[in-house]
Amino acid sequence: MIFGAIVAGGIGTRMSISDIPKQFMMLGNKPIIIHTIEKFILCTKLDYIFVGVHKDWTAYMENLLDKYSLDRNKVFIAEGGKDRNSTIFNIISAIEKTHGESTDHIIVTHDCVRPFVSIRIINENIDCALKYGACNTAIHSVDTIVVSEDGDSISDIPDRRRMFLGQTPQSFNMSELKKLYSELTEEEKNILTDACKIFYLRNKPVKIVAGDISNIKITTVSDYKMAQAIVGGKLFD
Amino acid sequence: MIFGAIVAGGIGTRMSISDIPKQFMMLGNKPIIIHTIEKFILCTKLDYIFVGVHKDWTAYMENLLDKYSLDRNKVFIAEGGKDRNSTIFNIISAIEKTHGESTDHIIVTHDCVRPFVSIRIINENIDCALKYGACNTAIHSVDTIVVSEDGDSISDIPDRRRMFLGQTPQSFNMSELKKLYSELTEEEKNILTDACKIFYLRNKPVKIVAGDISNIKITTVSDYKMAQAIVGGKLFD
Repeated sequence: MIFGAIVAGGIGTRMSISDIPKQFMMLGNKPIIIHTIEKFILCTKLDYIFVGVHKDWTAYMENLLDKYSLDRNKVFIAEGGKDRNSTIFNIISAIEKTHGESTDHIIVTHDCVRPFVSIRIINENIDCALKYGACNTAIHSVDTIVVSEDGDSISDIPDRRRMFLGQTPQSFNMSELKKLYSELTEEEKNILTDACKIFYLRNKPVKIVAGDISNIKITTVSDYKMAQAIVGGKLFD
Repeated sequence: MIFGAIVAGGIGTRMSISDIPKQFMMLGNKPIIIHTIEKFILCTKLDYIFVGVHKDWTAYMENLLDKYSLDRNKVFIAEGGKDRNSTIFNIISAIEKTHGESTDHIIVTHDCVRPFVSIRIINENIDCALKYGACNTAIHSVDTIVVSEDGDSISDIPDRRRMFLGQTPQSFNMSELKKLYSELTEEEKNILTDACKIFYLRNKPVKIVAGDISNIKITTVSDYKMAQAIVGGKLFD
């Protein structure tokens, strides 16, 4: 089966303009996370969607699902973990509890604060994970990438044609991800916050799915204003 | 003296929604390039601003400057060259013809299709180029950077903390830039399309000035729609 896993375990309220975690902030006429979940519901290849939320916010999330009338036969809540990967593995546990283990399960993991993901991107992730076992959504960098060891002076300017900006979804064969993660030391688990990097470091191929420049991650007030402008203008929605 | 150099030599009409070069497309109530030039006019540290335009479009550009009543004692047009660096060096020739050569001249080069540059960014470029001789505007990457040699599979995932996205302005001591460029072979000139890379390859320090996520480069229809949303929402203007 094919599962969506929306990673929303963060409780960061860094945005000075709000005192709730940013995924719950309103974007146009509904919270950011509702936009995101709706994109996943619209993808018919997905069997079920699990949303990983910090335990202090699961009741709040339950209320949101009801308030915006999302299909409760399709969308489920799991308890988030202490970091991104823990949340993903909590979701995997919840999936296996209800749907059993299988080497055929595919998991499409996605940042809850990327509400402009398209159905095309989700579908290509599923196809690619089914075929190759792991993939990452990414776009060519329009800007030149520069490397700086100290954040003060440039130490390298690599060839731009080789450089991509990673987005999400990142999608995996679920049992393969579990196996590779279980083989990590505790120290490695603390360093490898990006699940694709686990595959890459174990010499497993990670394919690239073409993302889109509009698939932005809302992390700062500037991003949030840009996202508000996008939905206000109804240009991408 | 301090000079702005707005690089607008391109005649690309790749955007399917327009048959004029993209810098002349309307953004809100005026062309993209007028937004950009106005940001430079508003920076009081700049003595003069030169705009490098392809010879087929100089008359068009002249008309735009008049139509939008820009200060013709401050803004001048130079003929663009066959690529980015050629345009910059045509601008330097035009500057030296009217203002003479000096080892104190600073040039603040900027993409004409980055209309959301701020006065803060331009001012910091000037200070940094005066102090160190060369600088590049850049922001921390929010997205993970991934490397792919073939565009198909990931070949490296470098530590994100070292990776920055280059924007413009890029600012230089003018005589130093001329000297380094004149020492390049014709082959190197064809490869080194980024002026900062010339400094970096000659082991000259290139400092980083903090850019802004809103300082986007308008190169695709998606970028253009996002920019329209931004000015429509009056969020950044």
